[in-house]
Amino acid sequence: MATIEEGATVLILTEGGKRYLVGVRSGKRFHCSEGYVDVGDLVGREYGCIIQSNTGVRMSVHKPLLMDLLSKVRRVTQIVYPKDIGYMLIQSGIGPGSRVLEAGTGTGVLTATLAYYVKPTGRVYSYDVNQEYLEAAHYTLERLGLREYVELKNGDVSKYVEETGLDAVFLDVPEPWKAVENAWKALKPSGRFLSLSPTIEQIVETVETLRARGFDDISCVELLMRNMRVKRGMTRPEFLMHGHTAYIVSARKTLT
Amino acid sequence: MATIEEGATVLILTEGGKRYLVGVRSGKRFHCSEGYVDVGDLVGREYGCIIQSNTGVRMSVHKPLLMDLLSKVRRVTQIVYPKDIGYMLIQSGIGPGSRVLEAGTGTGVLTATLAYYVKPTGRVYSYDVNQEYLEAAHYTLERLGLREYVELKNGDVSKYVEETGLDAVFLDVPEPWKAVENAWKALKPSGRFLSLSPTIEQIVETVETLRARGFDDISCVELLMRNMRVKRGMTRPEFLMHGHTAYIVSARKTLT
Amino acid sequence: MATIEEGATVLILTEGGKRYLVGVRSGKRFHCSEGYVDVGDLVGREYGCIIQSNTGVRMSVHKPLLMDLLSKVRRVTQIVYPKDIGYMLIQSGIGPGSRVLEAGTGTGVLTATLAYYVKPTGRVYSYDVNQEYLEAAHYTLERLGLREYVELKNGDVSKYVEETGLDAVFLDVPEPWKAVENAWKALKPSGRFLSLSPTIEQIVETVETLRARGFDDISCVELLMRNMRVKRGMTRPEFLMHGHTAYIVSARKTLT
Amino acid sequence: MATIEEGATVLILTEGGKRYLVGVRSGKRFHCSEGYVDVGDLVGREYGCIIQSNTGVRMSVHKPLLMDLLSKVRRVTQIVYPKDIGYMLIQSGIGPGSRVLEAGTGTGVLTATLAYYVKPTGRVYSYDVNQEYLEAAHYTLERLGLREYVELKNGDVSKYVEETGLDAVFLDVPEPWKAVENAWKALKPSGRFLSLSPTIEQIVETVETLRARGFDDISCVELLMRNMRVKRGMTRPEFLMHGHTAYIVSARKTLT
Repeated sequence: MATIEEGATVLILTEGGKRYLVGVRSGKRFHCSEGYVDVGDLVGREYGCIIQSNTGVRMSVHKPLLMDLLSKVRRVTQIVYPKDIGYMLIQSGIGPGSRVLEAGTGTGVLTATLAYYVKPTGRVYSYDVNQEYLEAAHYTLERLGLREYVELKNGDVSKYVEETGLDAVFLDVPEPWKAVENAWKALKPSGRFLSLSPTIEQIVETVETLRARGFDDISCVELLMRNMRVKRGMTRPEFLMHGHTAYIVSARKTLT
Repeated sequence: MATIEEGATVLILTEGGKRYLVGVRSGKRFHCSEGYVDVGDLVGREYGCIIQSNTGVRMSVHKPLLMDLLSKVRRVTQIVYPKDIGYMLIQSGIGPGSRVLEAGTGTGVLTATLAYYVKPTGRVYSYDVNQEYLEAAHYTLERLGLREYVELKNGDVSKYVEETGLDAVFLDVPEPWKAVENAWKALKPSGRFLSLSPTIEQIVETVETLRARGFDDISCVELLMRNMRVKRGMTRPEFLMHGHTAYIVSARKTLT
Repeated sequence: MATIEEGATVLILTEGGKRYLVGVRSGKRFHCSEGYVDVGDLVGREYGCIIQSNTGVRMSVHKPLLMDLLSKVRRVTQIVYPKDIGYMLIQSGIGPGSRVLEAGTGTGVLTATLAYYVKPTGRVYSYDVNQEYLEAAHYTLERLGLREYVELKNGDVSKYVEETGLDAVFLDVPEPWKAVENAWKALKPSGRFLSLSPTIEQIVETVETLRARGFDDISCVELLMRNMRVKRGMTRPEFLMHGHTAYIVSARKTLT
Repeated sequence: MATIEEGATVLILTEGGKRYLVGVRSGKRFHCSEGYVDVGDLVGREYGCIIQSNTGVRMSVHKPLLMDLLSKVRRVTQIVYPKDIGYMLIQSGIGPGSRVLEAGTGTGVLTATLAYYVKPTGRVYSYDVNQEYLEAAHYTLERLGLREYVELKNGDVSKYVEETGLDAVFLDVPEPWKAVENAWKALKPSGRFLSLSPTIEQIVETVETLRARGFDDISCVELLMRNMRVKRGMTRPEFLMHGHTAYIVSARKTLT
């Protein structure tokens, strides 16, 4: 169960805090700033094992989680952060079996996470106006084994959404307010609207449009995450932090 | 599908922002600070519908999500907040099929959330030293339809844990460092350790114990959530906020 | 020097954390939720002394600082917080001898602070459209011994400002952008503009107006203050905090 | 008054947001990443004037404030930030005429600020165990015209403080708790204790020592400053921020 196999992707963590995602193949040598590691030799060893680079740097080898894999997806668009994804997921109430609309697909980071939590019986309908993004997301989802739970659709949700009776809608588009009407139509009554935007003007427009269209339980929050450096006698918050990622708007469909 | 049935629990939201969870039964009248509502009349109506109290206050009626139901669980212990739950969930990498240890059960809020995300094929092993908490959690889980995915166990994880090969361990106990050794044994290699504590001294002790026991990828974060009042021409963060809930420690098991 | 005199105002701090400002007069008994204290007996005792209420509650008696006195000013308008005042003061560069414009006077809290830091040779010109506020501020300043450093003026700075060559302008008005033009005229070249507003829309309007008028070095910040509960073994941030007070805009006049 | 003189130090701000402190001398050419500026030509021009570099970059020329000058002091030790200085200043209640103890002197940034606000009649007694720091601070204070308000003293305040009856004590030392006893002795009754420390363990030790020694009104706060990017249609908090500078402990001396 916990043995590394030929072809696996492993997460290598260095004692200095670096993180590498590496494909394991017989005879492969992986070069990094700590020297090199013969990753072919990892086949048959257990996840969680400790290895050394040729220069003597200690590393541990792990089975990557979804978030590890997603953290290395090429960032063609703004990334969605774990703290924001986790909160939206909980707020949306979706779980195995849920049917969900997403726009835009972008890098597929949120797409993959939604697929992961609605599988095996649910489905994600993910729209993007950019065909290239959809193709990149296609490969990301394939690699993660999540492709079958997602329908990738080339289209603009502010113009047309085919699905109805959905449990939740997730928007990560520049003008979410333009998609409010179609989100209302696509959602089942009492269904959940979630939207992610970096600027204040976007949330004002979105919230006012939601109010006018009869959504209820509207809230807007921002999450700040602070890393702590924990070390006995020297404990303090880290000096640098992300001061902002995005505001999260949520609402519930009412019948009006 | 979206029709309210006899015996259902509905979430009633008032225009003033109040939230009520009400059981629907024929002939039942629900009294609140907005007057009363004949909730028996809701049978057969759709979720998302708009009603009025006898005093004319507008309300919407919704199908409650897991977080709505959990927000009304009686708080015998410190509550775990959605922002923290969502982040821990994502960080843990658990999903449908995962096997998870939790301690302590407490009110069962985290227990229920974990069960919701590992179902239908996963399992939560939830320990508490307090038999009364376990009984309360039993009824909470039954009511939510999540009882079958959880084993409630009366015991102290710092003394004994029966399970092995687990995907993740979640601790919400006063002295998490005392459970680090048993968490290590219960986890599969590369498995995830998560712990939630309000004070600095707790996280220092926990992190130092994790380091000594050979855990890796240790991090400690704190999430601050700020509500925005969004109204065109009057938008600003809310004046009051929760300044602190808990620090979240996470780590990965290595083989040492 | 440190002896309490007849007629003095003292700050009484209880062991439970309450704060009372009390005038000392022979024979006076001060009633509070901790019982009563014969404050007349304080005459001749030293500041910093420890007393007990009749019910045995321990209290300490202090010489109030400016901020203590101001914290009890009746809040007819939004209060300005010490964290914001301190930052604006430092950013403005004003000190003994500076000549400063303020609008609006409001409760006089900021007025008094500015007067305190420009005295003895500087001057504060404080405008308000509301004559009642000016009268209240008059008495506040008199009581604090700061009246002579302030000119209280009934007027609207967006319409007319008489002074020129000022070191700094401080605005705490609902529409600061309307006063930008007159602020520019009143300031000496390179002089400092400071403005305090709670909403986003106010700062957008103000900053865009400053840019258009040739101000430079424009910044907008927000300060969050978090109280720590410090107790060995139980240290953590306080659970409740002020999530927002105001945004602070600052700029420098250029010659255009 | 507002004319640039030979020998003056000016603050040059570029349209790109860079900040240069430059000494003005006839014939001097100042080279920077925007090309060069003949700063000798600034003599006789007004502060606030707009100039261009030889490559056409727009710049404004300002009279530097204390904070501008201090921001360029060589950082031999941890810097003290304006937000923290401003808060401590307000909390301390000091003003023109106050007598203040400081330790350690370090770069002299806090020393200079204290001198600026207690002048012309007050005095700062600034101790450091490091003679080199004192010498650097000596020149910094001279350059700022604040030298005469400060006594620089080579010594360890945890061992000995000569002054008594002080209005306030400011500590920025690695082990502030060791200086609590001498701070108590040096302060007048009801006098203010302020201390700045980056780590939790420092504040726990300091606060517990203050409690044991009979200080009162003990508080510990942390200030977070967030910059806003204000631009119509694109307004949001900046993505990066300082997550931590220091905790500020304050207290008042009681007689025990």
